[in-house]
Amino acid sequence: MIVDCAIYEDGKRRDGKVDLEHAYSERGRQNAFVWIGLYEPTAEEFESIKSEFELHPLAVEDAIHAHQRPKLEVFDDMVLLVLKPARYVDPTEVIELGELLVFLGHDYVITVRHGEASALQAVREELDSDPARMRGGPGAVLHAILDRVVDDYGPAIEGLEEDIDQVEAELFSPERSNPGERIYRLLREVLAFRRACAPLVDPVQKLAAGHFDQIDPATRDYFRDVNDHLIRARDQLDGMHDLLTSSLQANLAQVGIRQNEDMRRISAWVAIIAVPTAVAGIYGMNFEHMPELDWTYGYPAVLVAMLVICTSLYVYFRRAGWL
Amino acid sequence: MIVDCAIYEDGKRRDGKVDLEHAYSERGRQNAFVWIGLYEPTAEEFESIKSEFELHPLAVEDAIHAHQRPKLEVFDDMVLLVLKPARYVDPTEVIELGELLVFLGHDYVITVRHGEASALQAVREELDSDPARMRGGPGAVLHAILDRVVDDYGPAIEGLEEDIDQVEAELFSPERSNPGERIYRLLREVLAFRRACAPLVDPVQKLAAGHFDQIDPATRDYFRDVNDHLIRARDQLDGMHDLLTSSLQANLAQVGIRQNEDMRRISAWVAIIAVPTAVAGIYGMNFEHMPELDWTYGYPAVLVAMLVICTSLYVYFRRAGWL
Amino acid sequence: MIVDCAIYEDGKRRDGKVDLEHAYSERGRQNAFVWIGLYEPTAEEFESIKSEFELHPLAVEDAIHAHQRPKLEVFDDMVLLVLKPARYVDPTEVIELGELLVFLGHDYVITVRHGEASALQAVREELDSDPARMRGGPGAVLHAILDRVVDDYGPAIEGLEEDIDQVEAELFSPERSNPGERIYRLLREVLAFRRACAPLVDPVQKLAAGHFDQIDPATRDYFRDVNDHLIRARDQLDGMHDLLTSSLQANLAQVGIRQNEDMRRISAWVAIIAVPTAVAGIYGMNFEHMPELDWTYGYPAVLVAMLVICTSLYVYFRRAGWL
Amino acid sequence: MIVDCAIYEDGKRRDGKVDLEHAYSERGRQNAFVWIGLYEPTAEEFESIKSEFELHPLAVEDAIHAHQRPKLEVFDDMVLLVLKPARYVDPTEVIELGELLVFLGHDYVITVRHGEASALQAVREELDSDPARMRGGPGAVLHAILDRVVDDYGPAIEGLEEDIDQVEAELFSPERSNPGERIYRLLREVLAFRRACAPLVDPVQKLAAGHFDQIDPATRDYFRDVNDHLIRARDQLDGMHDLLTSSLQANLAQVGIRQNEDMRRISAWVAIIAVPTAVAGIYGMNFEHMPELDWTYGYPAVLVAMLVICTSLYVYFRRAGWL
Amino acid sequence: MIVDCAIYEDGKRRDGKVDLEHAYSERGRQNAFVWIGLYEPTAEEFESIKSEFELHPLAVEDAIHAHQRPKLEVFDDMVLLVLKPARYVDPTEVIELGELLVFLGHDYVITVRHGEASALQAVREELDSDPARMRGGPGAVLHAILDRVVDDYGPAIEGLEEDIDQVEAELFSPERSNPGERIYRLLREVLAFRRACAPLVDPVQKLAAGHFDQIDPATRDYFRDVNDHLIRARDQLDGMHDLLTSSLQANLAQVGIRQNEDMRRISAWVAIIAVPTAVAGIYGMNFEHMPELDWTYGYPAVLVAMLVICTSLYVYFRRAGWL
Repeated sequence: MIVDCAIYEDGKRRDGKVDLEHAYSERGRQNAFVWIGLYEPTAEEFESIKSEFELHPLAVEDAIHAHQRPKLEVFDDMVLLVLKPARYVDPTEVIELGELLVFLGHDYVITVRHGEASALQAVREELDSDPARMRGGPGAVLHAILDRVVDDYGPAIEGLEEDIDQVEAELFSPERSNPGERIYRLLREVLAFRRACAPLVDPVQKLAAGHFDQIDPATRDYFRDVNDHLIRARDQLDGMHDLLTSSLQANLAQVGIRQNEDMRRISAWVAIIAVPTAVAGIYGMNFEHMPELDWTYGYPAVLVAMLVICTSLYVYFRRAGWL
Repeated sequence: MIVDCAIYEDGKRRDGKVDLEHAYSERGRQNAFVWIGLYEPTAEEFESIKSEFELHPLAVEDAIHAHQRPKLEVFDDMVLLVLKPARYVDPTEVIELGELLVFLGHDYVITVRHGEASALQAVREELDSDPARMRGGPGAVLHAILDRVVDDYGPAIEGLEEDIDQVEAELFSPERSNPGERIYRLLREVLAFRRACAPLVDPVQKLAAGHFDQIDPATRDYFRDVNDHLIRARDQLDGMHDLLTSSLQANLAQVGIRQNEDMRRISAWVAIIAVPTAVAGIYGMNFEHMPELDWTYGYPAVLVAMLVICTSLYVYFRRAGWL
Repeated sequence: MIVDCAIYEDGKRRDGKVDLEHAYSERGRQNAFVWIGLYEPTAEEFESIKSEFELHPLAVEDAIHAHQRPKLEVFDDMVLLVLKPARYVDPTEVIELGELLVFLGHDYVITVRHGEASALQAVREELDSDPARMRGGPGAVLHAILDRVVDDYGPAIEGLEEDIDQVEAELFSPERSNPGERIYRLLREVLAFRRACAPLVDPVQKLAAGHFDQIDPATRDYFRDVNDHLIRARDQLDGMHDLLTSSLQANLAQVGIRQNEDMRRISAWVAIIAVPTAVAGIYGMNFEHMPELDWTYGYPAVLVAMLVICTSLYVYFRRAGWL
Repeated sequence: MIVDCAIYEDGKRRDGKVDLEHAYSERGRQNAFVWIGLYEPTAEEFESIKSEFELHPLAVEDAIHAHQRPKLEVFDDMVLLVLKPARYVDPTEVIELGELLVFLGHDYVITVRHGEASALQAVREELDSDPARMRGGPGAVLHAILDRVVDDYGPAIEGLEEDIDQVEAELFSPERSNPGERIYRLLREVLAFRRACAPLVDPVQKLAAGHFDQIDPATRDYFRDVNDHLIRARDQLDGMHDLLTSSLQANLAQVGIRQNEDMRRISAWVAIIAVPTAVAGIYGMNFEHMPELDWTYGYPAVLVAMLVICTSLYVYFRRAGWL
Repeated sequence: MIVDCAIYEDGKRRDGKVDLEHAYSERGRQNAFVWIGLYEPTAEEFESIKSEFELHPLAVEDAIHAHQRPKLEVFDDMVLLVLKPARYVDPTEVIELGELLVFLGHDYVITVRHGEASALQAVREELDSDPARMRGGPGAVLHAILDRVVDDYGPAIEGLEEDIDQVEAELFSPERSNPGERIYRLLREVLAFRRACAPLVDPVQKLAAGHFDQIDPATRDYFRDVNDHLIRARDQLDGMHDLLTSSLQANLAQVGIRQNEDMRRISAWVAIIAVPTAVAGIYGMNFEHMPELDWTYGYPAVLVAMLVICTSLYVYFRRAGWL
């Protein structure tokens, strides 16, 4: 589906709706470039774009089928960047990963979006209102998109961090929840997220080092800044991975300790009740000569004795922390 | 066993059955090459091929004995690529690994297959019907085979992923299965699979970088694409390894928690039954003066009391989540 | 907030209070430089500094928003170093991490401090009283700050080491504490601390290797010395990480062993009390012909027998180490 | 002890017994070299060899004291290769590691063997009967020895693999063995074996790359082949290490699950027996008015009731998988 | 404290006691050098040495305060090597680490020792009696010291290995010791020892590669030999680390298995005693019509029945391995 198609001249978006054919005819002009935005295009929808911009068939395949790893590839004079935008979905504690492909030539940008996690619309609007920045050409668009995608990692990571804080609190709380499953699921999200962001470090590093002449040298520092945030995200995810692995292990000990507490409590009660049972058994024996049985207050005395023993045991266990 | 032997001229397969001797005599021609396919050949079967193409004795040894690690080797003007095709066998949840050796010269391709996991036949048929592609010569055949082998990693990995999803569901399900063995066995498959695919990354990277003049420079991008899929496969296997290791650990906690639940349930019942036993013991004592014993409704009163105590305990334990 | 602003000429601080405008006008002089210290500045406060020193907008953003990873960046003729000072807070066993940004040009140093963990004031006073050292210019200030920050890692690490010693003692003490939570929390501190100090090793290594002409070559050895301490800190933190991970595991075994001890103790008592209960049950049977029941000393004999059995069991369990 | 001493001319072994002095005098000849084999030589035995071949004192020390790590060293025009032959000893499931030092000059090979794990005799016999190969000089001898040592790693690794298969079967078998100790001991063997073979990869890589002019360039491919086997051995050992570590963890879960089963079984029986005890207690109470006691069939009715309850519980537990 | 001060000419130690001033005046001579040995010097004691040899203030600080990591530093024409001698202290199973600093110039060696773990005295005596070796100058002294320190790692590692062997034996012994604490403490020693020796590999590698002209090229092979021992020590420590980590895990399983055994034993006894209790309860019921009660041999028959049941259960449990 074609989401948006626009011609930019001297950084300004030309007014009115532009269709593909029109865009093709205008892209040769000085200081002009075309930005075409697509959403999960079919092979048919992509056909005309492919032939107009002479895109490499492998790049086209990537654009249509998605499920690529994040990467930066150079095909002759075209650069293809594959990004994985991330969005934290709170109720399910899941990181939703989309896919975003950016084809970059000297006079065109083609963005292909898969999944819901990315918000290209906002980037487009921001850029439309900032002609100075758009004068930087396709490279400026690439930076804006990359910057947004990486910036959006921030809240996603914060979402995970909050979950981890909750899990930690749960882990050592006196209440007997079992955060094992939650820890494991967070671990899975962290691993998937890391795989979505870590492979970008190298490509963005190359963009910052100015390896590509599609990119304006003046934007080097900006790409370096993006890379910085990327490395920070990766390091935070690594730290989370370490923490979650350790908390799986800590959880084991907590489970063992709670088991211990339960067992002690149960056995304390069993011990308390075993004493009157034994005493009653003794006075239930049928010996001829059991003087206590004939005492007037034998029965209440024994009852009191039982009560005293049970209470003493209860107090003792209480003090020992078993009850 | 010789599976197939054909001469390709200008990308087109010459009609009719071709025997080895004929193939040898034709390979010198312009734009022609020979493709010989073998299946678990014996040393005798391989002898004539070895002498015709002057294959290195070490390469021949590899072809006959198999059990090599995936690798790319250069012997003078011949390239030997050893691949490990993989196939997911569902009922046993096992990755079946075959072995495929490709000898590549300027005018010949010799493929040697061990085990069942590879489907060279399909590749051959596809290429036979695409002369344009076959005009690329032996390098095109190599790419087609490599592409198929690596593409086939996809479903194998998906098979494992589905198993892991099932294992995860089992791990945290309220039913008391023990997925420990299944996790361990999946881990073993993942490790073996990884050893079959990861060592290929470097060689294919070299093919993509155009280190070998047996390979047409125009196919560079295609080898890079294959490498991309290879790296993706390796990363996915690494992720699975991480997940399975963590799930072994999570399983430990689950085992502990279930143990805890069982123990609490059992002990709750024991506690419930211990109370009437103790009470009965008390009224079984033989004291002379136990007024309750003479009451008309003493017996039913005690029975009711027992019932009330047991029911209360039951309700209490139920609420505490112990039953 | 502007904390301090001073002009240094030939290493000596010019007397009297200096405001920003004055400082700007004086910075062109021979052998003079300006040192401006800020504390969590707002964008407005930073505006004039930014335009006077022509700071890069990205560097300015870092200065205002903080939450950077430690890094060294070069913008044209300005060097930006981001440091993470650390302070050990004893009662909570937490490493408090601040953030310190140093902008370094040929004739200015701008320090921006976030959080409380750093004590720039002390560094400034020390330098003010050592004109010889200050003659080294902005590079000397950078070294002094870096040296202090890294030196302050020492006590923070010692604080953690002491905690780890306590945790180890607790881990294997006969008392039944559960150091699991404390181990985990220390682990989290160690990981965060490591992330604050390890990324500095590379930048400081570059400072020592003399990559930057803002830094006087004569101070190379000093930066190398700082780097040495930095590497030592990182290695110590790595060692702690290893130890804490192992102690999480050792804790598991301790928990299991204590559980075992408790279970044996409880069951020993249950066994001791089960014997008189069984004996009493036997003599409570209603058989016509039970000769013992008629014996004059039957009852006391049974009581004594019970006592002897219980005592023997007690002694036996005691000797076996179960009680 | 001097095991063998021979002069080879044009690849052929000179007939008759050769003593050291004779060998020394002949080594200058064209196309001739000397091969001296020693077994755990003393310093005295080695003295004459040392002075004749001007061996470096450090190399000599290595030869006599053994306990070196595998390595390749160059002393002027002499190459010293230290190998660790391995042999799998079945009954004890141990990898026996020997030590083999090869001193290699242009016209001599000196082999020093420590321990029993290597079978140089077989290599020597094979080479004696293959003059074509021996014409390659000392380099050919080196290759033959290296090839044999690395080939012998194969069966040793297979031995370990079989043990691991057995351990896996044991791990998940319904029988309650504890493979913990066996896993641990195999892990120790794998680690020691890996230390014996992995450090060789680099040196043999250098031999294959033709860094040494004592080695005939024509044998490059052969050394590469050896290296391939070496890398394969190392990778297999790494895989085993991973598997054994995971199986230690899986064993923990198995132990926990068995514990759970035992506990449930025991407690099921205790529950079954607790019911008749309680019922009997009730009818053992001494109330005046207990109508059941006077019924003619009260006693058998209660017995039958007890039996029914116990049987029902038994069937119930059986179905729940607790018995 | 100055421990020793001597002048060496042509490798021979000049007779008589030499004080510092004298040593200073003689160091300019041909083929002569000074060796000054210090033990934990104060800043004052070190002052004259510092000014005579123009030592770098940072190097001096290191010498006085110690607590450096092992390293090699070059200050102009002076080399500073920091070593960590190790000594195994048997009763406490601790590796005692000292610190040894060697300042090396063209005509002087200054050794500074901290802690007790190093035995420089022996090295000095050995060298004093070997003028040929001492003719190598300061570099020969450096080698002798380094060689001794690294050689001394051998017995320390052996001490740890013996401990690990004992721990392994304890781990799987039928006796119920808990080697958890010992494993953990050994792990801590191994980690500390590794940190003391591994960082030396790189510097000694540089010494062997002849990067420093203070070192006689002829001693290259000797430094390489030292490095070999160093790498061996590091690899052994790595292996120990792996083993100890695995044994922590194996210990967990052992703890679980012992727990299981205890529980089965206890519950077997409880089951044995529960049966006569239940039987006695039955015959303690007060039914009118219980024919067995009137039998003459009812009582002994029941006693015998109880005994038979208990014995059968005992034999059964014994056979099942529960008792």
